[in-house]
Order: sequence, then structure tokens, then C-alpha cells
Amino acid sequence: MKKNVSAVLLALILVCLASWAKACDAELRGTGDLGVVVERERGTLLIVEHSTDQVLCRVEGLGDLSHASAVFSRDARYAYVFGRDGGLTKVDILTGKVTHRVIQGGNSIGGAISQDGSLIAVSNYEPGGVKVFSSTDLSLVADIPAAFEGSEKGSKTVGLVDAPGNRFVFSLFEGASTWIADLSKPQKPQITKFTGVGKEPYDALISGDGRYYIAGLFGEDGLALLDLWHPDKGVRRILPHYGKGQEKLPVYKMPHLEGWAVAGDLIFFPAIGLHQVLVANKESWEQVARLELKGQPVFAMARPDGRQVWVNFAFPDNNWIQVIDVPSLQVIKTMDVGKGALHMEFTPRGEKVWISIRDKNQIKIFDTQSLELIKTLPAQRPSGIFFTNRSGKIGL
Amino acid sequence: MKKNVSAVLLALILVCLASWAKACDAELRGTGDLGVVVERERGTLLIVEHSTDQVLCRVEGLGDLSHASAVFSRDARYAYVFGRDGGLTKVDILTGKVTHRVIQGGNSIGGAISQDGSLIAVSNYEPGGVKVFSSTDLSLVADIPAAFEGSEKGSKTVGLVDAPGNRFVFSLFEGASTWIADLSKPQKPQITKFTGVGKEPYDALISGDGRYYIAGLFGEDGLALLDLWHPDKGVRRILPHYGKGQEKLPVYKMPHLEGWAVAGDLIFFPAIGLHQVLVANKESWEQVARLELKGQPVFAMARPDGRQVWVNFAFPDNNWIQVIDVPSLQVIKTMDVGKGALHMEFTPRGEKVWISIRDKNQIKIFDTQSLELIKTLPAQRPSGIFFTNRSGKIGL
Repeated sequence: MKKNVSAVLLALILVCLASWAKACDAELRGTGDLGVVVERERGTLLIVEHSTDQVLCRVEGLGDLSHASAVFSRDARYAYVFGRDGGLTKVDILTGKVTHRVIQGGNSIGGAISQDGSLIAVSNYEPGGVKVFSSTDLSLVADIPAAFEGSEKGSKTVGLVDAPGNRFVFSLFEGASTWIADLSKPQKPQITKFTGVGKEPYDALISGDGRYYIAGLFGEDGLALLDLWHPDKGVRRILPHYGKGQEKLPVYKMPHLEGWAVAGDLIFFPAIGLHQVLVANKESWEQVARLELKGQPVFAMARPDGRQVWVNFAFPDNNWIQVIDVPSLQVIKTMDVGKGALHMEFTPRGEKVWISIRDKNQIKIFDTQSLELIKTLPAQRPSGIFFTNRSGKIGL
Repeated sequence: MKKNVSAVLLALILVCLASWAKACDAELRGTGDLGVVVERERGTLLIVEHSTDQVLCRVEGLGDLSHASAVFSRDARYAYVFGRDGGLTKVDILTGKVTHRVIQGGNSIGGAISQDGSLIAVSNYEPGGVKVFSSTDLSLVADIPAAFEGSEKGSKTVGLVDAPGNRFVFSLFEGASTWIADLSKPQKPQITKFTGVGKEPYDALISGDGRYYIAGLFGEDGLALLDLWHPDKGVRRILPHYGKGQEKLPVYKMPHLEGWAVAGDLIFFPAIGLHQVLVANKESWEQVARLELKGQPVFAMARPDGRQVWVNFAFPDNNWIQVIDVPSLQVIKTMDVGKGALHMEFTPRGEKVWISIRDKNQIKIFDTQSLELIKTLPAQRPSGIFFTNRSGKIGL
């Protein structure tokens, strides 16, 4: 009984701590070591700093942030946050102020910033299609409906990423297509369409060099690969057995593709419906190994030097984190970090990793060399963590 | 005669323009799109911004900046500049002020910042060895003399780079060795020594993932490769014919190794004493091609997406820039940009490249998609250009 009271008190104290975060002070400082943490239920962002591992302040009023993601401006001062409610919010991370906000669609599921930093693209479930906004004031620049043959309504769009040449690449769920939208002339997007890429693409990734676009298919086995250096060769199927023989999962239980880790010549990706990470060769796209893990992986993230891959898992195993050593393909650490380990973000040069632990209202920070916990920070139901060095990267 | 007068007047106007740069204003702004340009003879730095392609201001008082290089703090606010006179200067790029300066050796030739951002290492010709400083106040943290068997004086150190795990890697010119200095405990550096790596290593590079350290040899043919994932395997010789059969060049005419471009599986590097770039496979370390170019290459730099390699050349061909298309291994553009094209720096996601043209007192900015000149900026005898996104990268 006493133990229970202590536990309740401790929980209350943690919740209080977690809800505390001071207002943002606009002070002269570099923005290379800043980031944002999404507090999904509260609809707020924490602004954080990873040199000293601290929460700087909290930003209010961002709407529904479940599954929210963020990209950063070219100067690493502004975060553009894509909310599930179709909201697109521009936040000044130096002042902690929302500078612009538009409700751009009914149900948005992700976005990207163009190579030159001038355009923000958002993909939508409702009403479908992709909208493109000015990164300065979020005014609408282009509206790309995803109409396809045999449909009046148009398609949901998924797997939206930026690519070199001020292009955006995305796929049509109902339309079974992958489109390249060239926005070199923003008012006149040039669209290249690849049809029949496979049934129901549900998510995609682009390789770190902006060359390979890979869409996952909900409606059939295998994956659809487009080599952006050779678009004339069209979309081809790789890993044809991916997903084969597995029970159908609901689409929201399918692995995130943006979590795929590329480490040297190897690519690590979550198996569907299995407690495994699959390893394939990035040249031949053949599977080379299958690693047994604690649960159904959600994200498999490579440390920036590609020496380790960190994996988190779907419920009910979402308290585990496993670390794979790339040269030996062995699990070198298994950690119980607490329920709801949703997102991992490495510092730019990879010496630390931040992990959001939703059900504990915590962010845990680990040293990636010793694999030891360095620090725990309070946060309210944290999910996504995004650091500003993403602003200088293709496809992030 | 009239023509000559006009030319002289034009030159004077250009010099005046080039010497103009306002004082720095400390204003609230992101630091993700800033950089520094070294004005070598004047001993000054220009602070530049690559979103709008402009010079923001000039910083005075950095001493002898011939062959100067720079690294950035973790927060992308401070530049650490390594001068040829042994000076190490910390510059606040938001205020344009020198915050700290030490003369740390007689003749320094480059430096690096540790993975965690806490340490600055500098390699020295005179008195040799490596000194390690706190990145906060430039106080001395560790002094690593490069003593080796058969010498009392110690060795010049070259090819100093940072590697994951708060390590620095460098080579001993007279000592024919490569050393790994682990500074996880800064006061007690742990040194691992590889002896007999080859005669007179004169420069080195580390691959972008921090795995491969490659030293060039002045005293014999071939290159010395150390796989930092497998240091137990020791240093091995690759490309044994590199340099073979060529007339001996003075050491200052040897190609810069940090200019090697890694693009996908290929590595591009300047041939020694030939008008060629060599292409090797990064897995097998075998040579796969040899491209005939305009002159003796100095730097071969990959666009961040690896789709192009840009090459500049040694005197008397230092007015040329050539662009190689990686998939076809063809030269797709040859440009006369003016005499003294010394350094190329790509914007973080590669849509633009800045080139310093020393003898024209200019920086020229090109669009890397159209390969067209976008803008020309004045600068006094500019050499190195360094953008802040280097702060988030291994080995830069």
C-alpha cells in the first residue's frame, strides 16, 4: 500500500516536471545543435539543445500532433511541422513563436522541403494530392491533384520526399503510381508519372544520396524501386518475397519505411509481421541476412557512421531497444527503456541518441559508444524528435 | 591605350569593392546557412550566407592565413581557424568577433574538432606532434609529441582528422607511422601506433562515414589504408601503382587528399603529375577508370548527392573547372572561371557551389543543375571556403 502511494506520488511529480518548460528567450546563439520534440497529445513542441542535453522551452498551439513530423529551413532557424489535422505550422525556434500556420488539407501525413529551401510540400489523405507552399509565408504556390485513370476523386498521396533538382517524389495509394514533380519553375510543376508500380504503395524512402526511391506496397508483396539517376528505366520490383506468406496487417501497423537504415553497402529494414530485421545488399538488392529480434521492428536507424543500427518495436514490445553491430551483424545490447519508445534521433555526428519514451513522459539520452544512459529529460507524451542538421540533408 | 586605362580603372574599382565589407551586426538569426571565406593575404575572414548568396561582414586580425582551414563548433556559431603561422583563432560568426586566439605552434598545417565538439586538435610541422585544446577557451588539454624510434626531435604530423569515438587520427611524416589518439578521457590520451606504413606520409583523408583512413605517401608509390572498424588488421597498401613512374614533385605540389570525392561506390582522386583523375572502386580499391582532363587536378569534389564531381587544377591551368558526370564518367562542362580557382564548397544539399577565384578577387557561385553562373561576390584574394554544415559531419 505504502509502495503504491509512493509510486502515485512519484508519478505525479514526474507529470508536474514534465509539464514544466519555461517560455522561450530569444537570445543570440547558434542553431546547429537545436531540435524539436513533438508532444503529441498536448499539441506542443519542446525546443531542445543537444550540446548540453536540455529542454530550452515549449511552444504552444500546434493543433493535433499525432504522427506529426518536421523539417527545417535552410538557415536552421525555422521548423515546419506537419500535423495530422492538416495543419502546417512554421515555428521560429529562436523565439519559440509560431510565425505562420495554415490548415492546408483534411488529413495530412507528411511533408518535405525543397533542395533550395524555398518550397514546402505536403501530402494529403483528404482530399488527396500534394500542395506546395512558400517556405517564407506559407502561401500556396502549387496544387497538384492526384487524379488517375478510373477515378474522379483522385488518390491519397504517400511517401513524399525531396530529391535533388528541386524535385519532390511521392506515390499514389489508390493510383498505384509514383510521380516525380519537378518544381524548378514552382508555378509550373512538371510531373513525370510511373503507373502500375504495384498495388497500394503505403510509404516510401529515398536513399541519403537522393538516388533511390523505394515504395512499400500494402496490396502485394515486394517493393517498388525507382532509380532517379535513370528514370527512363522505370520502376522495378525488388525483394519480391518481402511480406510474402505473412498475415495481412492493418496499414497503420506496417513498418515505417523512412526508418530503413543504410550502413555502408547494407540496408536494414523491418520484416512485416515478424520479429526480424532483414538485411539486403544495396547493389544487388538481394537479401543477405535475417536477424531475430525482440519484437516487430518499427524503426531501424543507422548511427551516422553506419557502425550500429538501433531498433525499436511495435506494441507490446515497445519498451525494448536493441542495438545491432553492423560488421558482425550481432545484437550487442538489449535495453528495457520503458513503454512507448517511439522515436530515435542521433546527434549529427552520432555520439549520442535521443529516444522518446511516451508512456514515461521522458526523453532518454544514450552514449552510443558505451551504450550507457547519460541523461533523462521530462517531456509530455513525446513522440517525434527532429534535430536541425536535417536541414542540410537530402530526403529528410 | 584607352583600353589599358579602362582596364586599370576597372581593376581599381574591383579592388575597392573587394575590400569593402561592413562590420558584423549581431542579430538573431539561424546559423545553418553561414560560412567563412579565407582572405589569405589580408589575414581576414569574410562571413557569408548562402541562402541569399551574400557577404555579411569581414573579421580582422587572424594572422597569416595562407593554406588556412576551418572547422565549426557543434552549435554552428563559432569557427576555429588554423593558420599557417601556428595561430588557432576562435571566431564568433554571429558577432564577427575574435573571442580567443593562441599561437600554439611554429607552423601548423591543419586541425580537427572532436566528435563531441569539446576538443580542437592541431597538427604541427614545428615543433611537430599534435596539440589538443578545449573548444571553449582554447586552453591546452593534451600535448602529444610525435617521438619515434631513431629520432630525438619527433616528427612532423600530417593528415589529422577526427573519427567516431572522440578519436583523432594522424600520420608522422618522418616517423612513417599512423597514430590513433583516443581522447575519450582528454587528460589521458590513449595512443595506438601503426609503424612502417610507408615512406613519408604527407596528407590523408577519412571517408565520410569515419571508417577508412587513407594516407598518401611522398616517399614511395601507393597509399596506406587503415580500416578503423578493424584496426587489428593493421595498415595495408592500396593502389600500389599510384605515383609510379612519375617525376618527383615537390611536396607542396602533391594533390590534396582531403579533396578525394566519394560518389556511391566510386572514389575519384587526382593523379600525381598527370592531367588525369583516377577512379577506383571503394570496395576492392582497384582502379576502374582514368579520365583525361585540362591539367594536374588539385581537388576532385563530389556534389553532396554524388552525381557530379567538380575538379580544379594546379598552375598554369588554375583558371579551369571541369565537371564530371558520375554515371557516364564523362566531362559535361569545362569552364574558364578566371586565374586562381583555389577552392570549391557545395551548399549542404548541393544545389549550388561556391568557387574562390584568387587572382580575380572574386567568389563565383554556380547552379549545379544548369551549370550556369548565378552570382559573383567580391573578396580579397580568397582561398578556402567553409560552410557551417561541416559542424555536423565526420572528418570535416
